[in-house]
Amino acid sequence: MSCDFLAQAVAGVQKLSPYVPGKPVDELARELGLAVDSIVKLASNENPLGPSQKALAAIQAELPELTRYPDGNGFVLKQALANKFALALEQITLGNGSNDILELVARAFLAPGLNAVFSQHAFAVYPLATQAVGAEGRSVPAKDWGHDLPAMLAACDANTRVIFIANPNNPTGTWFDQAALEAFLDQVPEHILVVLDEAYTEYSAAGELPNGLDYLSRYPNLLVSRTFSKAYGLAALRIGYAASSPVVADVLNRVRQPFNANSLALAAAAAALTDDAYLERSRVLNDQGMQQLTAGFAEHGLNWIASRGNFIAVDVQRDAGPVYQALLREGVIVRPVAGYGMPQHLRVSIGLPEENQRFLEALRKVLAA
Amino acid sequence: MSCDFLAQAVAGVQKLSPYVPGKPVDELARELGLAVDSIVKLASNENPLGPSQKALAAIQAELPELTRYPDGNGFVLKQALANKFALALEQITLGNGSNDILELVARAFLAPGLNAVFSQHAFAVYPLATQAVGAEGRSVPAKDWGHDLPAMLAACDANTRVIFIANPNNPTGTWFDQAALEAFLDQVPEHILVVLDEAYTEYSAAGELPNGLDYLSRYPNLLVSRTFSKAYGLAALRIGYAASSPVVADVLNRVRQPFNANSLALAAAAAALTDDAYLERSRVLNDQGMQQLTAGFAEHGLNWIASRGNFIAVDVQRDAGPVYQALLREGVIVRPVAGYGMPQHLRVSIGLPEENQRFLEALRKVLAA
Repeated sequence: MSCDFLAQAVAGVQKLSPYVPGKPVDELARELGLAVDSIVKLASNENPLGPSQKALAAIQAELPELTRYPDGNGFVLKQALANKFALALEQITLGNGSNDILELVARAFLAPGLNAVFSQHAFAVYPLATQAVGAEGRSVPAKDWGHDLPAMLAACDANTRVIFIANPNNPTGTWFDQAALEAFLDQVPEHILVVLDEAYTEYSAAGELPNGLDYLSRYPNLLVSRTFSKAYGLAALRIGYAASSPVVADVLNRVRQPFNANSLALAAAAAALTDDAYLERSRVLNDQGMQQLTAGFAEHGLNWIASRGNFIAVDVQRDAGPVYQALLREGVIVRPVAGYGMPQHLRVSIGLPEENQRFLEALRKVLAA
Repeated sequence: MSCDFLAQAVAGVQKLSPYVPGKPVDELARELGLAVDSIVKLASNENPLGPSQKALAAIQAELPELTRYPDGNGFVLKQALANKFALALEQITLGNGSNDILELVARAFLAPGLNAVFSQHAFAVYPLATQAVGAEGRSVPAKDWGHDLPAMLAACDANTRVIFIANPNNPTGTWFDQAALEAFLDQVPEHILVVLDEAYTEYSAAGELPNGLDYLSRYPNLLVSRTFSKAYGLAALRIGYAASSPVVADVLNRVRQPFNANSLALAAAAAALTDDAYLERSRVLNDQGMQQLTAGFAEHGLNWIASRGNFIAVDVQRDAGPVYQALLREGVIVRPVAGYGMPQHLRVSIGLPEENQRFLEALRKVLAA
């Protein structure tokens, strides 16, 4: 007799399939009756180093204030970001993870009748956030697994309000260089907001990738999105940020929840920004792990997509679903990416050397079976 | 030359004025050059007890996992809520504070051409969340500062999708009883989702207010929203929840960010749910503080609105803005509520006995000046 509230939901939401995250270790342990510490999770592009000591100390200092609301303006973290990256406070928007930033953009600038352009094989939140507000998502075929920037430009029309690009892209790990980015930004019509997602940029050494922040003054329609969930090691806390023109930041601030970023995240992120040694260790460990995995794939006779992220997509040369399931039974969690149009690939996050080894051995066993 | 991105924002967002939170202690300290610990903040309905030791212990246990994403399904906290309140896991939606819950409802069920009904003097997030998605907000005149439920019912039409009611209401502290709630729910058309915001319900002893959770099985169009930010003392962490029919929870889950609740919040909230002694101390302290404040107001010859929250709105019998400013200069932060249509009231959160005393003395001084 009661009302069908699914049919009552707004059109975009009715058809929305929620994002499928990497399987949590606890969940696999419950399902298979395995001990939690026997499981290797290389499924969510998390930092295998464990937390920064500076971030931990900042959290401890903040705990007595647990009953207080966060500073809704995030003054301390914005100040730290402004100092480190030579930004004005007014250019910064803080998010509950950079996922929040992507959704703020969609809610502020997209609506039915408007569209957003993104690449095939791009991060799932771009189409999801677009669809949730009833706008059209235009997925542009990838080129060699990466963004085809000229084709993305050609896909824009008068109703395009946002282009999402990622450098490097998740889950492919592909990237574009300075010349390609500049040529693209030069041609994007000024009414279209370009969201440059640099969630993984810290895994590249200086100069290896263009730094989006360098282009903000030249392109007022550019927004750079970054996160503390990856190289800074704070995924549990949910904290990310955007740098943009002040007017775009002002608009995002209007749709932002007043206390979207929690106090421990604000404090830990400000501290993590000062922990250059941790960041450097993260990058070095990642480079070594990437070499370890690609060497292993070569031994197994497998191809992979060259990656500048903290993950790599390997082609298992068959339906990857059963391989993923078999790896789970070996206590190894990786990420199937069939939902990204990559049914024969698995995305593997770079772990500690022993975790990478454990994965390679499990993969060898599973592929031989 | 560059594009006006404010004009480009979707219509509801362009006209949105961001929520104005209580002034943070650090901000006042910076502005007035005061020592942080000389300032009394009674502005954000925060728990003055300091954090629950059980919540703190749960946070410590979670810190080694800081680099990991939260469990996007919030299994442990949902299980704890289900056990404590006899709910099914499928009825629970977790939010980044209950503010997140309110926004999920708006994004899932409201759109241009639809409307939401709420009361005059009700929580600011109801109209803000409604406007952000381009829907019409219908503010129904209050009766004796509280909700006029029959008038709210009369304000609904075929395009009404959501009614927001709060028991007790913030910032007035007003409440309604079981008979009024039941009569209301009996008459609300089944296609309208009733959001019953019980953010402050834990400050009432059992039986003093109707328990919204008791009505879920009878009214599939009821959603009860609660928070850990008030009596549970976890405002810094941002964690709240909704209990509803499974189909409404399924819809909210589609619009929810995959990791909207952070790991420390999930762990701390599950622990706080077991800390009955803390909750009881919070309520007793609040009752005593309420008596202390009302006795002080009576001495000062001031009227107030009787409240079941952890705050009270006092009528200062003049424009409250300059009184608020003068209190700031005394190092006491309270909340002006002119934006709620209450220009002669100040909302004061219940603090520790010495904080309440300090406020009463500052108020006496300011009103005498």
